[in-house]
Amino acid sequence: VSRTLIALDWGTSSLRAFRMQQGQVLETRHSAEGIQPLATQGAAGFERAFAAITAGWLDGPVAVVASGMVGSAQGWREAPYVGCPADVHALATQAQQVASGAGPAVLIAPGLLFEPPGSPPDVMRGEEIQVAGALLQEPAWAEAARFVLPGTHSKWVEVERGHVTGFATHLTGECFALLRAHSILGRLMPAEGDAAAELAGFDQGLAAARTSRPGELLHQLFGTRTLGLTRRLPPAALPGYLSGLLIGHEMLAALGANTRLRQAPLVLIGEPALQARYARALAFFGRPADAVLANTAPQGLWAFARAVGVLDS
Amino acid sequence: VSRTLIALDWGTSSLRAFRMQQGQVLETRHSAEGIQPLATQGAAGFERAFAAITAGWLDGPVAVVASGMVGSAQGWREAPYVGCPADVHALATQAQQVASGAGPAVLIAPGLLFEPPGSPPDVMRGEEIQVAGALLQEPAWAEAARFVLPGTHSKWVEVERGHVTGFATHLTGECFALLRAHSILGRLMPAEGDAAAELAGFDQGLAAARTSRPGELLHQLFGTRTLGLTRRLPPAALPGYLSGLLIGHEMLAALGANTRLRQAPLVLIGEPALQARYARALAFFGRPADAVLANTAPQGLWAFARAVGVLDS
Repeated sequence: VSRTLIALDWGTSSLRAFRMQQGQVLETRHSAEGIQPLATQGAAGFERAFAAITAGWLDGPVAVVASGMVGSAQGWREAPYVGCPADVHALATQAQQVASGAGPAVLIAPGLLFEPPGSPPDVMRGEEIQVAGALLQEPAWAEAARFVLPGTHSKWVEVERGHVTGFATHLTGECFALLRAHSILGRLMPAEGDAAAELAGFDQGLAAARTSRPGELLHQLFGTRTLGLTRRLPPAALPGYLSGLLIGHEMLAALGANTRLRQAPLVLIGEPALQARYARALAFFGRPADAVLANTAPQGLWAFARAVGVLDS
Repeated sequence: VSRTLIALDWGTSSLRAFRMQQGQVLETRHSAEGIQPLATQGAAGFERAFAAITAGWLDGPVAVVASGMVGSAQGWREAPYVGCPADVHALATQAQQVASGAGPAVLIAPGLLFEPPGSPPDVMRGEEIQVAGALLQEPAWAEAARFVLPGTHSKWVEVERGHVTGFATHLTGECFALLRAHSILGRLMPAEGDAAAELAGFDQGLAAARTSRPGELLHQLFGTRTLGLTRRLPPAALPGYLSGLLIGHEMLAALGANTRLRQAPLVLIGEPALQARYARALAFFGRPADAVLANTAPQGLWAFARAVGVLDS
């Protein structure tokens, strides 16, 4: 046990390291060595990336924990999914320990598996730690709350009595990136952004999504092209329109889902640009966020480390 | 006017040429010189591709017509869209003539524009000619029928009293190709196909789509990954599952659309592999196709040429 924690938020395309004491972040570092560039290098690659990002941090006694895709089959050490309902203690009992090659061992948090009856299962890695961080920040949410974590794979997470009881992933960010970069819809879009035009397009995309009929996304997507082709939307508005359509469909499904938690607080967690879009979309769909938080991974990793018992408290 | 027609079905990625007399195809040729590889070469590229595919066909008197993306802004000569409702005579009055550089001029058919009140416009190029071909084959359909033309951009076309009165595009094929090649969903899919496993996956994807709630596609897509990850579907079934999900969403939207033509014949036009998938999906959704046709572009180009008045009949 130690008083200092090295907390690693280790995802597909980036690695964030936090040096923490008493639940507070003292120092933050960032690297592009996500698991994707490391996956082909085996343990040695992870050890090297770990040593690089923790340089000078390992002199005294420290505990080290990590969350995210680093615990996937393509990561440093696979930490199998834990089933829902689960809290941070359930994550702690399934933590996987791996030698860092540079002193302290690393405790890797598992991800979560949700198996809704009659539907395909759902999985996440990393967001469960962010939710744990949010609960540390506002313990009242543990009783009942919903969390929205936008991203490449957006997550809507339900918490009741301190446990994640279920969640749903939406492929929103990945579909946007693919359609913009590789589809016919991207052809009319300018390389340069124009924030005002994008926002106007975004609102129109949300409006189209809100009135859509079941199954209609694949048809509505083509509107991104025809609105440009017929000059009803300027090229600079088209990326926003596409984003609004996709995020709007996510809203339609997630806010329309059958849940006991309709009246519970709705908490938005994410980096600023996406946070702003999602906050706007939630308001547009008549269910504004009750709270908006930046990345809560450091606090979540602190809660996880405490649950594992490696912190001196 | 002549008795022989050279009919060109000239799309984005391929060029099909038909030598015809009395409405019958005497000879067919195919080339990969769609407008995409030619777009950067200007008229000279189109002239060269035309000369190559018609080699030996231009000795006697011939008329030449073309349909598809060859009439787009990126094509040989732009033939602006004609508004709905429109029949083959409306297309004929807006035909664009371009010198072929090899003898006869080429008459390029315009595409169609549909502007539904309160929704984005829709456009097509080529499918309107296929529909004209189907109407030549079965004149009774001119009174009232719906046509489904699967593809990269699937089209659902409504015909009343001989005119195309409206249509809707679905980005189904393009989304499937993108998600399979570039998204996380493709990672678990094998390079080799397995027809039986794909078909089983396809039916499961259709079933998931049929019971989906509004906006749910982006969430359901992720099921393609989790069903693979948790081994509930074998890798070989995943491409079929994704295809079933997407085609199922198209069915949900198109068959659920508000239309006067719910009781009218539903005609499926397409190449064999896609045709089989769509026929299966239509039946699964309780509305089997009343007729299934292979490519009707040659007959449609014949009808267009007659309407233009370049055929000796």
